[in-house]
Amino acid sequence: MTSPVAPHRSTAAPSERVRVRRAHKKAAYDPGTIAAILDEALVAHLGFAHEGQPFVIPTLHARIGDRVFVHGSSASRTLRALGGGGLPACLTVTLIDGLVYARSIFEMSTNYRSVVVLGEATPVTDFDEKMEALRAFSEQVMPGRWDAVRRPTRQEVKATAILALPLSEASAKVSTGGPDDGGSPDAALPVWAGHVPVRMVAGDPVPCPHLPPGIPVPDDLVRASLRA
Amino acid sequence: MTSPVAPHRSTAAPSERVRVRRAHKKAAYDPGTIAAILDEALVAHLGFAHEGQPFVIPTLHARIGDRVFVHGSSASRTLRALGGGGLPACLTVTLIDGLVYARSIFEMSTNYRSVVVLGEATPVTDFDEKMEALRAFSEQVMPGRWDAVRRPTRQEVKATAILALPLSEASAKVSTGGPDDGGSPDAALPVWAGHVPVRMVAGDPVPCPHLPPGIPVPDDLVRASLRA
Repeated sequence: MTSPVAPHRSTAAPSERVRVRRAHKKAAYDPGTIAAILDEALVAHLGFAHEGQPFVIPTLHARIGDRVFVHGSSASRTLRALGGGGLPACLTVTLIDGLVYARSIFEMSTNYRSVVVLGEATPVTDFDEKMEALRAFSEQVMPGRWDAVRRPTRQEVKATAILALPLSEASAKVSTGGPDDGGSPDAALPVWAGHVPVRMVAGDPVPCPHLPPGIPVPDDLVRASLRA
Repeated sequence: MTSPVAPHRSTAAPSERVRVRRAHKKAAYDPGTIAAILDEALVAHLGFAHEGQPFVIPTLHARIGDRVFVHGSSASRTLRALGGGGLPACLTVTLIDGLVYARSIFEMSTNYRSVVVLGEATPVTDFDEKMEALRAFSEQVMPGRWDAVRRPTRQEVKATAILALPLSEASAKVSTGGPDDGGSPDAALPVWAGHVPVRMVAGDPVPCPHLPPGIPVPDDLVRASLRA
């Protein structure tokens, strides 16, 4: 949410394999657009293959500069098989922003912002770097929480598998607005057409039953993007 | 949303490779739980590999019985490369249900429901079967819309690539409730702990500028799960 968003989109893909083929007018390749989408998402989907079978695992993620980190425990069986080397991977995040009600089934669609990152995921082993990634995970989902709760012990850091993926080969796709059939013969059909924005919102906090008395809910508990 | 949800969870994974390893107490393998999660999700992430590189593509999906269908156009370059045969794939959907505020960074987490389907994605070529899948996509995201708008022409059906994946090798993972550290020494820390539910909600409909006058917004435009 706090990332710089470039005022224009770059039109050049950083590689052929990450170039957006379908609906290429929705494509964006500039680091600002890519960073903003990554930073807003609550979850990423990490893809990798193991013995010829693709796996897609939902995971925590956070961007620091031009790299994205993921909580790698779910991929750990694969990492072990690789002996700690790099893992060809794809990290994808998708934010659904709306539903597009066209006059035909063929033109129905959703509004969304997505990012696809291709590259080699490598385990992060340096203690300080792992600590920075843990801080970034925490700040992305629960800003301010890092300073409010007990930080990770050395043992906890050691027990957490973290992977890093460079953002050098990434693309975004952004779809906004209403249906495309406003100028087609279908526009004469007597059916409502337009779009409906959707967003994630937080409900009321539910305290832990073991919470000591007298501890109020912090005003800024929930990050701004989720506030009603 | 209308799927049967079994009152208990099966504890037996249909295969070793789809068995949940991490936090296996959150695992579920019964068809009812898996169907309900698939049916609620607005988007799926389809994973496949091409020339050794994994790709994860967000896509429309819908379940019909014991198969899940995806809009396969995004995977079409890969399908072409395969000459129309089957494609080893993984389809994953993730619903984020809440944020879990523990007393330590290590115990922070999210509540979620996810499904991972492993298998071979095969192109759907039969016209009637494609039509049924298009209807299922539409009903999943915009229930009732199939009967309200223009249905696909033969040409439009032909132009739409659709893949099917059996649900015979699938697992779910469900995480609910508050933090796990209520009984730990951290519970004495003077910090708020608990969980905050999150959900997707729809905003106000935005009419297409080309909408003829006198067409009201249908009361049931937005599916029940998204209503405020």
